[in-house]
Amino acid sequence: MQFFSRLRSSILTQPILEINLKKLVENYKLLTDLCAPAVAAAVIKDDAYGVGAKEVVRVLYEKAGCRTFFAAHALEACEVADLAPDATFYILQGIGEDSLPLFQKYGFVAVICSPQMLAFYKKHQKGLARPAIQIETGLNRLGFRAEDLQKLSAKDRKMFCLVMSHLAAADEQGHFMNSVQLKNFKDLKEKYFKDLPASLSASDGVFLGQDFHFDMVRLGAAVYGINTAPYRPNQMQNIVTLKAPVLQVADMKKGEFAGYSATYRAATNRKIAIVSIGYGDGIKRSLSNVGKVYFKQGLKWGEARILGRVSMDNVICDVTDLKDINVGRFGFLVFDEYTLDDMARDAGTIAYELLSDIGKGKRFIKKYISEK
Amino acid sequence: MQFFSRLRSSILTQPILEINLKKLVENYKLLTDLCAPAVAAAVIKDDAYGVGAKEVVRVLYEKAGCRTFFAAHALEACEVADLAPDATFYILQGIGEDSLPLFQKYGFVAVICSPQMLAFYKKHQKGLARPAIQIETGLNRLGFRAEDLQKLSAKDRKMFCLVMSHLAAADEQGHFMNSVQLKNFKDLKEKYFKDLPASLSASDGVFLGQDFHFDMVRLGAAVYGINTAPYRPNQMQNIVTLKAPVLQVADMKKGEFAGYSATYRAATNRKIAIVSIGYGDGIKRSLSNVGKVYFKQGLKWGEARILGRVSMDNVICDVTDLKDINVGRFGFLVFDEYTLDDMARDAGTIAYELLSDIGKGKRFIKKYISEK
Repeated sequence: MQFFSRLRSSILTQPILEINLKKLVENYKLLTDLCAPAVAAAVIKDDAYGVGAKEVVRVLYEKAGCRTFFAAHALEACEVADLAPDATFYILQGIGEDSLPLFQKYGFVAVICSPQMLAFYKKHQKGLARPAIQIETGLNRLGFRAEDLQKLSAKDRKMFCLVMSHLAAADEQGHFMNSVQLKNFKDLKEKYFKDLPASLSASDGVFLGQDFHFDMVRLGAAVYGINTAPYRPNQMQNIVTLKAPVLQVADMKKGEFAGYSATYRAATNRKIAIVSIGYGDGIKRSLSNVGKVYFKQGLKWGEARILGRVSMDNVICDVTDLKDINVGRFGFLVFDEYTLDDMARDAGTIAYELLSDIGKGKRFIKKYISEK
Repeated sequence: MQFFSRLRSSILTQPILEINLKKLVENYKLLTDLCAPAVAAAVIKDDAYGVGAKEVVRVLYEKAGCRTFFAAHALEACEVADLAPDATFYILQGIGEDSLPLFQKYGFVAVICSPQMLAFYKKHQKGLARPAIQIETGLNRLGFRAEDLQKLSAKDRKMFCLVMSHLAAADEQGHFMNSVQLKNFKDLKEKYFKDLPASLSASDGVFLGQDFHFDMVRLGAAVYGINTAPYRPNQMQNIVTLKAPVLQVADMKKGEFAGYSATYRAATNRKIAIVSIGYGDGIKRSLSNVGKVYFKQGLKWGEARILGRVSMDNVICDVTDLKDINVGRFGFLVFDEYTLDDMARDAGTIAYELLSDIGKGKRFIKKYISEK
């Protein structure tokens, strides 16, 4: 009977990645409300954090009225520019010889980070959009330092359309850097860019309150469902479901080992399932012996611990205590009850990195859901 | 003077990934010699470990006479099948409803891992290539268990064109699993598939000696330059150079912090460079405060430690002790003197995972080098 029910189930081999664009739009709209009247720009760098820049730009433009986008590289923006014809694209890594033709063709706004880049911009200024200026307030990453700002002429300062900076620790509500950077930003803006529109915060800054919103916020991670305010429950909806079929179910006898380098040994007899997904699909190797795969058990979810090393194409998991785990059943790696944030906790990283890796997977059946 | 030399340098924003296909072919040929007379199949799953399946299949087919390839998914093989018209493609994850049409169209060889998959294959057998069978010898991943093999009819056993298994710990020369699996494989082959061509080893098994070679080896990681015998110096040539331009050089004053969550604090004045590459390009976050960026210093290389967290688009590194680090200079993340294996050591993972992630990067200027 068991044998026949196993044979009857379907045989599948490919993992499936579902992206819920309807919830993405709802996340964006909620964030827009939270930071109004500031302009709610959408950050679509790194292929929209892996979610798919084309789909994200299209849906935010058409369904949510978004007209301001941030990419890291001009290369990224030119792939989506046609989908949002009257929108403004800011390029965070700025302008250089390798990207100049794209700025000339598409009218992107370069975010200028240094005196050298400003000199380059001015040399090629004709026909380029007015740039934004990034100023450094404590992250010690890209941006004009105080001493660089001092050297800017009044004419130079009037060239810009936006002054911006970036917070280092806005995901920790009480972190001292938040007030330090807010003060630095206010002081520098007051001194050098008094009447210029300003932007300090990304998603995480939205939750720090109106002081941090200024004229524009740059919404990335939170739009994609990541909890950027992890000191309290997530207000965003998860938009990612990642599942993969069971290729095989087997008995693992007491004393046997599982996976590369034999890092798991069965101290008792186990039942294992081999699920068709691995680090080649963005399931981090750091989930070895730590991560989980979930299976529907009636109306509930059952948890299957990953055994041994995650390999490139497969994970082995422990289904000893679960029912009806057959070949062809789907194990869930990411879903509403075990989100990217949960997986990141297990993997020792942040959901941003997971989504960036998973999103690049080329072996998924990728489904975009537009209706709930 | 310093000021002008900095202004004169070029401004660049995009990272560059170079893949040396000539060295890749040399690696493959060396491995072929090491495992002759066994057939040297090339493993091109996960987009050829991130290197680019199209380029790899083309060059191995044309320059090295490779006629046998292994992919994980049929989807992967069909993208390159036309480049190697008379080659055989084995599909490691096997055949299922989601991939059946591709097997029918391209004549791929399914690697059957379970009785259920075999039943599926037989149901759709007409017009399909003869399959291979994966048997389980100790990894506890995909493959027929001893009890499954017992149930196979003599007719079933004659259906296959190849019997194979996979080693769990072949990268550790003295690991007990190697001899355990070798014995299991020999015993099961003798018992059930006496005259069938056999394959046990991937790259790492090549270095364990001729006993492990059988009729075919499946060469993956080592072809791509990874050291799969890390108990001795690498015999393979590095094929990957990854570099990114410095976007900004700045002074970081004593007491200041760098990067997200302020995880690096300067105890003395530092000079920092911000390099235009991040985890969005596959530079793992686990390299935060640990990894290195290298800069040419005349004929030598200078090491710049990564400071603070790796972010999505940038790393901050310490160039205090280096000379002539200007905007537009290239920092090297992977090159012959600091290979993927070295970076993996720093990142707490294996080169396979790094290459898989880096290779999927969409923001590189990607260059394939065919001549040395």
